[in-house]
Amino acid sequence: MRKSSRSTVDPFIVMDVMEAARKAEAAGEHIIHMEVGQPGTAAPQAAQRVLAETMRKDAMGYTVALGLPALRARVAQLYGDWYNVDLNPERIVVTSGSSAAFLLTFTALFDAGDTVAIGAPGYPSYRQILKALSLNPLDLRSAPENRLQPVPDDFADLDIAGLMVASPANPTGTMLDKPAMQALIDATHAKGASFISDEIYHGIEYEAKAVTALELTDDCYVINSFSKYFSMTGWRIGWMVVPEDHVRSVERLAQNMFICAPHVSQVAALAAMDATDELEANMAVYRENRRLMLEGLPKAGFTKFAPPDGAFYVYVDVSDFTDDSRAFAAEILAKAKVAVTPGLDFDPERGHSTLRFSYARSSADIAEGLLRLETFMRERSHL
Amino acid sequence: MRKSSRSTVDPFIVMDVMEAARKAEAAGEHIIHMEVGQPGTAAPQAAQRVLAETMRKDAMGYTVALGLPALRARVAQLYGDWYNVDLNPERIVVTSGSSAAFLLTFTALFDAGDTVAIGAPGYPSYRQILKALSLNPLDLRSAPENRLQPVPDDFADLDIAGLMVASPANPTGTMLDKPAMQALIDATHAKGASFISDEIYHGIEYEAKAVTALELTDDCYVINSFSKYFSMTGWRIGWMVVPEDHVRSVERLAQNMFICAPHVSQVAALAAMDATDELEANMAVYRENRRLMLEGLPKAGFTKFAPPDGAFYVYVDVSDFTDDSRAFAAEILAKAKVAVTPGLDFDPERGHSTLRFSYARSSADIAEGLLRLETFMRERSHL
Repeated sequence: MRKSSRSTVDPFIVMDVMEAARKAEAAGEHIIHMEVGQPGTAAPQAAQRVLAETMRKDAMGYTVALGLPALRARVAQLYGDWYNVDLNPERIVVTSGSSAAFLLTFTALFDAGDTVAIGAPGYPSYRQILKALSLNPLDLRSAPENRLQPVPDDFADLDIAGLMVASPANPTGTMLDKPAMQALIDATHAKGASFISDEIYHGIEYEAKAVTALELTDDCYVINSFSKYFSMTGWRIGWMVVPEDHVRSVERLAQNMFICAPHVSQVAALAAMDATDELEANMAVYRENRRLMLEGLPKAGFTKFAPPDGAFYVYVDVSDFTDDSRAFAAEILAKAKVAVTPGLDFDPERGHSTLRFSYARSSADIAEGLLRLETFMRERSHL
Repeated sequence: MRKSSRSTVDPFIVMDVMEAARKAEAAGEHIIHMEVGQPGTAAPQAAQRVLAETMRKDAMGYTVALGLPALRARVAQLYGDWYNVDLNPERIVVTSGSSAAFLLTFTALFDAGDTVAIGAPGYPSYRQILKALSLNPLDLRSAPENRLQPVPDDFADLDIAGLMVASPANPTGTMLDKPAMQALIDATHAKGASFISDEIYHGIEYEAKAVTALELTDDCYVINSFSKYFSMTGWRIGWMVVPEDHVRSVERLAQNMFICAPHVSQVAALAAMDATDELEANMAVYRENRRLMLEGLPKAGFTKFAPPDGAFYVYVDVSDFTDDSRAFAAEILAKAKVAVTPGLDFDPERGHSTLRFSYARSSADIAEGLLRLETFMRERSHL
């Protein structure tokens, strides 16, 4: 049986780390997980409670394709609360996580062969989803002086059908402020291209509120998720905001490609949005973890990074120590018993000298991990 | 903002019926729903109970991309129990419903521009998903003497990259027996094309057990779902079975395109598989409903149909009464207060003279619907 050429997907290099970590744990080792990209916390208790109640009285069949009207209205309200943006709930499309939102966005906007620019480093699946849909992902090599976010000059001479940005970004945690986002929107529109803003880490911010593209333009697709701030990764529930004149075509695509997002997850997500106390308790942990990282990483000798504006990652230039991040991550796992992600997944070209450290788990774990890293690096420098 | 050409999706014609039914209900009318494609029952109680317990002790983050190992093992066991097929659990990919399975299958097997043959009449979303992935759906006009299932002669002269069949089929409920399925597999393979078997209605069968393609070949993709027999539509959970040498590439696609199927739904699905009493109680209702349909439809004058082997639909040739199934469905809704689906969604070419009647709801509803149809048709013939 023939495989398609578009199904030839690069493996995640972090999978090797995760498999090695799993084996070490099976052999009785205690591993600190700084490689994971998800909260260690469950969905808010309130969400679980409402779901348990709803299950008892509702058959929970398909919902309409765009999602439960109450959930769409509540998401619209979030844009008022968080950004002072007055959003028409009709523009909100509830999706099976941001994964489904990417699939819907790319099929709604682009035809086979189109080129879509993305920042490098960036979330590795962007590239693979684009390829699977017969599109050409184009890595924009972002500069450290731009805090590894793309700028208009990066694609001034390129023929693109779309630009997708992420703020806060994975793996760097850096954000685009209003002028930076506006410049990217203007440059994209000047080319007649589509602007897509991945905002799945919104809510997890430290010094300033993240900017949504919707503060600056209605002529964009925004992708968001209940996975991170709302702590619901495994529930596969997210949303997108599309221009008014795109709602009908996205609805028809969604009806056919997905039927609907999981009904149980929609019910739980609606309740999660009001679980402010639990969500802010999670945020307090991230804030403390970030403080520990900003203090502990330099002590271990890791000094070359931009402090994250949001999300729960620090992306470190480790070129002083290695030009093989994969081997370096394996060494850190074997000797320090800390799992970290080699940069190659995020930036195939330059990631050989970077690592991503996640601080999504408990503060005790983060503190212990940082101690282990410090000890390991001290011993390593004495070899 | 430009829309892609592949996002130009035909609307579901049944949506007009559903909207008209909704309006009638809002105006106080009592409508019998014979247009719906989903069970009226909830997920088994046992599934809900296990989920409630698991939520209390597990954060329910992402699962591995291929699904919970216990669920994959349990699905493999089903192939032993139902078909006496010894299946390697490694070949099972848990998906977010059959919807995700279609997206994975088509991207894994086909490149942009490839032609994939499907039977007409057939599930309307096949055509739209193929189009959204820049593939060319090719309708095979199946013959009434073949009980509206495709046969090798239907594509003998065509250049195709794949054939997808459904047994039991939507909208007809007819099945392929072993010789018929084998002939299609052989003819497809003789062309070097890929064979895909949609088996989402398996378990809902009346006279004989449905045949899985895996009884006949390992060189195929099989798509199944927990939506129908296991009564879990809204949970968006299903599975596929792929050849051993395709597992790795499908896994990588799934990691990137979906991350994983909803964790909560995986847990519930695993428990649902052992809820035999509840599932068989549902089956008793379908069996009684089918008996009512086979008796009641002819009384109403609807005699041209093949008795369904499985699923919960009867697909009726109504060419004696109309050549505009859309108007006829509207008339039936307005006068008989019964919602039915015009055939145009399933067969754009010939569906102007067919209707699909669903019997997925309670037997009381079905009996009442049939009485209304009989009265309506009697009065109509006297006009």
